[in-house]
Amino acid sequence: MTSRDGFQWSESAGLTKGVPSIGVIEPATNLDGTAAGRFDVIVVGAGYTGLTAARDAAVAGLKVLLLEGRDRIGGRSWSSNINGYPFEMGGTWVSWGQPHVWREISRYQMRDQLEISQEYSHGVNEFSLGSLQGRRTMSHHEEDQIIESALKKFVNVDGEYGRKIMPFPHSEFAVPQSKTFDTLSAADRLKQIEHSLTPDEYTGLCGFVLLCSCGTLENTSFYEFLHWWALCNYSYEYCVEYLMKYKFKGGQSSFAIKFFQEALDTGNLSYAFNRRVSTIKDEKEVSVESEGETFTALRVISAVPLNVLNDISFEPPLPDGKKTAANTGHVNKCAKVHAECRERELRSWSGIDYPKNKLAYAFGDGTTPSGNTHIVAFGASHNHLDPEDDIEKTIQALQTLVPMSLERVVFHNWAKDEFAKGAWFFPPPMLLTNHLEDMRASHGRVFFANSDWAVGWRSFIDGAIEEGTRAALAVINELKRRQ
Amino acid sequence: MTSRDGFQWSESAGLTKGVPSIGVIEPATNLDGTAAGRFDVIVVGAGYTGLTAARDAAVAGLKVLLLEGRDRIGGRSWSSNINGYPFEMGGTWVSWGQPHVWREISRYQMRDQLEISQEYSHGVNEFSLGSLQGRRTMSHHEEDQIIESALKKFVNVDGEYGRKIMPFPHSEFAVPQSKTFDTLSAADRLKQIEHSLTPDEYTGLCGFVLLCSCGTLENTSFYEFLHWWALCNYSYEYCVEYLMKYKFKGGQSSFAIKFFQEALDTGNLSYAFNRRVSTIKDEKEVSVESEGETFTALRVISAVPLNVLNDISFEPPLPDGKKTAANTGHVNKCAKVHAECRERELRSWSGIDYPKNKLAYAFGDGTTPSGNTHIVAFGASHNHLDPEDDIEKTIQALQTLVPMSLERVVFHNWAKDEFAKGAWFFPPPMLLTNHLEDMRASHGRVFFANSDWAVGWRSFIDGAIEEGTRAALAVINELKRRQ
Repeated sequence: MTSRDGFQWSESAGLTKGVPSIGVIEPATNLDGTAAGRFDVIVVGAGYTGLTAARDAAVAGLKVLLLEGRDRIGGRSWSSNINGYPFEMGGTWVSWGQPHVWREISRYQMRDQLEISQEYSHGVNEFSLGSLQGRRTMSHHEEDQIIESALKKFVNVDGEYGRKIMPFPHSEFAVPQSKTFDTLSAADRLKQIEHSLTPDEYTGLCGFVLLCSCGTLENTSFYEFLHWWALCNYSYEYCVEYLMKYKFKGGQSSFAIKFFQEALDTGNLSYAFNRRVSTIKDEKEVSVESEGETFTALRVISAVPLNVLNDISFEPPLPDGKKTAANTGHVNKCAKVHAECRERELRSWSGIDYPKNKLAYAFGDGTTPSGNTHIVAFGASHNHLDPEDDIEKTIQALQTLVPMSLERVVFHNWAKDEFAKGAWFFPPPMLLTNHLEDMRASHGRVFFANSDWAVGWRSFIDGAIEEGTRAALAVINELKRRQ
Repeated sequence: MTSRDGFQWSESAGLTKGVPSIGVIEPATNLDGTAAGRFDVIVVGAGYTGLTAARDAAVAGLKVLLLEGRDRIGGRSWSSNINGYPFEMGGTWVSWGQPHVWREISRYQMRDQLEISQEYSHGVNEFSLGSLQGRRTMSHHEEDQIIESALKKFVNVDGEYGRKIMPFPHSEFAVPQSKTFDTLSAADRLKQIEHSLTPDEYTGLCGFVLLCSCGTLENTSFYEFLHWWALCNYSYEYCVEYLMKYKFKGGQSSFAIKFFQEALDTGNLSYAFNRRVSTIKDEKEVSVESEGETFTALRVISAVPLNVLNDISFEPPLPDGKKTAANTGHVNKCAKVHAECRERELRSWSGIDYPKNKLAYAFGDGTTPSGNTHIVAFGASHNHLDPEDDIEKTIQALQTLVPMSLERVVFHNWAKDEFAKGAWFFPPPMLLTNHLEDMRASHGRVFFANSDWAVGWRSFIDGAIEEGTRAALAVINELKRRQ
């Protein structure tokens, strides 16, 4: 099936919108159109949060309606399978260091379905560092040394590389003074330590930080970067390990479909794709308006991301804190661009090109069945790229990273995605300090669940599952008490 | 409530059997005695594996009977609350690096219920190393350096400290050559590297390895030690972090009770404690005989540990592989002994005393409400201790570790525990190579789930939850297909 989402380009076909994905659900609904439909819980959004919430509620015997604006499951994490090879359009990497997602991988017996993205063994086995001063290539060992050294200076706010200020990465603000670092942007922190950075370290650090936030250095919360660092065992080794090493051989959608299928198998799941939700009204029950139809339920779980929360009209209106948080929004406007190129020898290549190139960070991510190299590249908003607006420019940005002969380009422009308005959550300074609790709070009979305000692996698939789990259990407990 | 399990001693009361625990369930059964009772699934054993399996099955709508020989939940992980302070009688430490247990901690919103065991800040802030050569005290920094240095020599079988030979700690035998190390005991491996160890390193290493296996160096599989090391991010820092740092403020039983309560709240859980299971017969249905009564179900999940599996009579008999595995058994005969002593200044003390003392490893684990220090000590079978047999000897072993004035001693002798016949699983050489799959396999309508044969955090609470999750889902899927 082909999703409306995503783009692909090839020399012969040019740029086309929509890419194939096993995450596209057919038929698009199992509602029969006659039953008005009164549900225990309506889940809005079929990303990992919504899928987890819908599954857990359906397994627990609740009558669930899952509504999704897109034609597919997965939200910001989905894969396009092109010629037998999965391109990850959004969230990709998982690890046993991420507890919620790993519990699911283990539960679905998919432990052995993982493969390794970056693999440094052959060909152009080197790292290319482009800066205003020009371009140098070096070994991956040198790359690691440069970035690790820079990161350690960046995060060492307490003499113990963040361990003292953030000892419990899964408990927000466990050390209250950690909030101090939410007043700082990455740019602010960089100013504090730039005197100690070599030019290579400076460029490498900027590239790495922007890979994490895909915003600008100015709108990237230094607190949140510290939080990622703490989640990654306070080490660069585990940043690589947890953030960009292990992915599904079959693509993310091969994982997401398990949640959907399990929910469906309970017999308790109704669903409808291509259903934009316009209004959520909490009266005696909750009614959800979507494409001219109204559905009612005892509870609603809104699993839509922060940046589109204000696109739904809530009655009664959302509290100010939640509205302000959504108006502020997160800053990640990532363009994730895949290149399939004919140079087999690029599998072990990686590079950073900052600040001039519109794709700042890239690496060999796999080998396609035809033997081509698959390179994945990331663009952040310090030098924003809308890849579909000028595909020649996009190709040029790829070829500036490293010379390559392109067979195919595949991407999802998250910045322009109407149901996400951004990629994975990355907060500007003070958003978490001021509004994390607001974002997490329920509003009457409406629960809000999203990786954007998870406590642990916030922004990750793990955080989405954490949140879906939390919301489902809260709803199950409330409805059980009611009985 | 007071459990039959465990012992406590004080100068005034002497040695008494049984300690209080919130894990003791009253009433001991909710069976009404008239209904013969036909269940979807009978779960045998109410440790974390059985609790997880029973909960997941009950939540999914199956009619569940949970049978337990003890008077309490938790199996090998339970806490005794004495004067408002929890003593952990078995499995204790948890971490966000352990995915299955962390998912549950997160789901039950118990993230903030953790505290830190070892805390190196004050008083006798030092490490005592006792060996045949005598006793020395040193800083914890020196302790870390000695044990880390020794461990790195011990595990460095591939030039990358185990990373090459065991790159996927959650996928068993992902590198087939790793099985080679299952032919070696810890003693064998020690012989290979002892030329490179200082006397301090030798003693520290022996103490640490025996803390992990609580067997002898000769019956400790080196493969399994490597597996633990890989699970701990190939580092001593994370051995400490994951194996003995974070515990529940309210004790393990405050966590286990959540699983039991959730299962009970579904209305689908029947249970009976003090019910030893004698026979499991798989005919058209499965019948379970316990204390003269027979219960039948469509499926059975046996959640009993390896070392007592052969105490149940199975019809048809268990396959040879499973029987042999159970006859071989695991080697952990740990005596875990808690001392409450009057020396406040011992909170930050730790020590190893090998091989002469019957308690080889100990450290300050907490401060009781009355301000006393709580020290936890471990004995392994190189110098076996049955603490209740001669309490004076036990007290002497504690006081040999470090001089202390004892207010209370609390312990569970896992070696003599009739329902476990050992503490956490630790395999002798070749048990995993020869029988891991045998141990994991189902037998007709009977599923076998236990942390003893988990794939990831085998031996840990995490592995128990992994296994309970696996078994419940398998049963749910089978019974669903059947409908």
